[in-house]
Amino acid sequence: MTLTVVGSIAFDAVETYAGRRERLLGGSAVHFSLASSFLSTTRVVGPVGEDFGEAEYAVLHGRGVDTSDIEQVPGGETFFWAGRYERDLNVRHTLQTDLNVFEHFEPKLSDASRAADVLFLANIQPDLQRRVREQCPQARFTALDTMDLWISIAKESLLEAIGTVDCLIVNDGEIKMLTDEPNLVRAARKVLDMGPRVVVAKQGEYGAAMFTRDGFFGLPSYPVADVIDPTGAGDTFAGGFLGYVAAHIDQDISEPLLRRAMAYGTALASFNVESFGTERVAALTGEEITERVQSLMHLTRFDDVPVPLRT
Amino acid sequence: MTLTVVGSIAFDAVETYAGRRERLLGGSAVHFSLASSFLSTTRVVGPVGEDFGEAEYAVLHGRGVDTSDIEQVPGGETFFWAGRYERDLNVRHTLQTDLNVFEHFEPKLSDASRAADVLFLANIQPDLQRRVREQCPQARFTALDTMDLWISIAKESLLEAIGTVDCLIVNDGEIKMLTDEPNLVRAARKVLDMGPRVVVAKQGEYGAAMFTRDGFFGLPSYPVADVIDPTGAGDTFAGGFLGYVAAHIDQDISEPLLRRAMAYGTALASFNVESFGTERVAALTGEEITERVQSLMHLTRFDDVPVPLRT
Repeated sequence: MTLTVVGSIAFDAVETYAGRRERLLGGSAVHFSLASSFLSTTRVVGPVGEDFGEAEYAVLHGRGVDTSDIEQVPGGETFFWAGRYERDLNVRHTLQTDLNVFEHFEPKLSDASRAADVLFLANIQPDLQRRVREQCPQARFTALDTMDLWISIAKESLLEAIGTVDCLIVNDGEIKMLTDEPNLVRAARKVLDMGPRVVVAKQGEYGAAMFTRDGFFGLPSYPVADVIDPTGAGDTFAGGFLGYVAAHIDQDISEPLLRRAMAYGTALASFNVESFGTERVAALTGEEITERVQSLMHLTRFDDVPVPLRT
Repeated sequence: MTLTVVGSIAFDAVETYAGRRERLLGGSAVHFSLASSFLSTTRVVGPVGEDFGEAEYAVLHGRGVDTSDIEQVPGGETFFWAGRYERDLNVRHTLQTDLNVFEHFEPKLSDASRAADVLFLANIQPDLQRRVREQCPQARFTALDTMDLWISIAKESLLEAIGTVDCLIVNDGEIKMLTDEPNLVRAARKVLDMGPRVVVAKQGEYGAAMFTRDGFFGLPSYPVADVIDPTGAGDTFAGGFLGYVAAHIDQDISEPLLRRAMAYGTALASFNVESFGTERVAALTGEEITERVQSLMHLTRFDDVPVPLRT
């Protein structure tokens, strides 16, 4: 019932039609762990600089996230990302990326982090993902995210990393790019042949699709009229998804269970976009999440009543 | 229980990774009516040239479509469209569009076509859509499709046309363009304020979403590994959707009924893309459709089992 995530911890400067924030707590491991913390004990592994202070730790501790494997680098500065979204929030421009302490990051997992039941390798250099994976040989469910950059410049290492995990959670465009296959169904099958038994395609505003060896599940996103900042939605999704898996790791990780995990991921991601940075998810109540999952179930359900067809 | 569709009847030249066809039966009214014919008596209104022959009529008659309002223009040539799809079938290039008999088309509806319970105004010039709408004052459910071209060059007339129908069925990008609102939920609400009580956003490979005054329904597309030719998928969807509505026009057109209509549209569209042109849908059996709707229901369903959340 424990979960370890390795990924970035960042300060983000974000501009959307709704406003501008200069220094938001962000990064894949942060968005992920805040979401997963509702479902499972979560440990974060990642580097920060001396500029990462009490206020930032307080957000994570406020959700009970274990930060003892966050490595504070003396004299270092925290990873920084700046981006601007167009009025159409699907269009994003990266303005600045300062790796800072992330440049020489070498993940060191404590015994507690190594003992996690579930491991999430957020989007970092694939060599690092592999070295973390090796430190957790007994993890019962492992998942990996990546991005177009690593597919372009480190594909071989990435393919090896993918071969060591149970689940790939990436954007649908990246599944197509990775497999050089423009049809998502075929692309996902190719990934299933590489080792993972679950492939989750994140589809942004359209939702997400899950492919397993004997199943498919499609889930639209929860309709949100007031999207303020989509940064971190994908990691929040992964946090809800894997938090749910971790919470049920003593059961058979069946297709119906994975579908429910998709619903928790989708619900949490829909909250994430309602405010800047981590604001909304950090302040969520369990009741709000439960209600949204229920609502999502009703908004995506139809009952067939067979009808005579003219043939 | 009768349905009239006004739209294009065409010859299409299509090239995809799977091959090339020089002269396929196509056009919005054709794709629509073949799909709707499984659910409701369908009459097609539209012009053809002298090159439109027995073979083409036979496809429509094979599905029981009433072609008596197809107007054959002496000396004319049928509307022609040529297009090429990239290996990624979401990218389409129009190579040629010859309006031919469509250039001076003035829809004349017979009494039988005017008496239809359900009317679909496929994507044609909005002035024509309005004149057809006026000829069917007693239609009990009316719907309209359009495209970016008409939003650009005939927006005022289009907005008037939209104000006269119960339902708008268009691509999600067009709803956003029409309302100058990049968020789909807000954009759909703006359309609901224009008159229609149902807005269906077609989302291509991602599925479709439906907005009503008090509801939302999201439905992923049926996963198809072998997409051969996506031409006409949107019109086939509309045909399944409105065919279902027409078949149940004596009932209350409720939210659950409209959701089932979405499922029939989605199932029929998924067949359409499996072969070139109309080949697959024209040869379908009712059993295949019923099975796919059932399958779609299972592929999109999850059951929530409440879980203790840590707050």
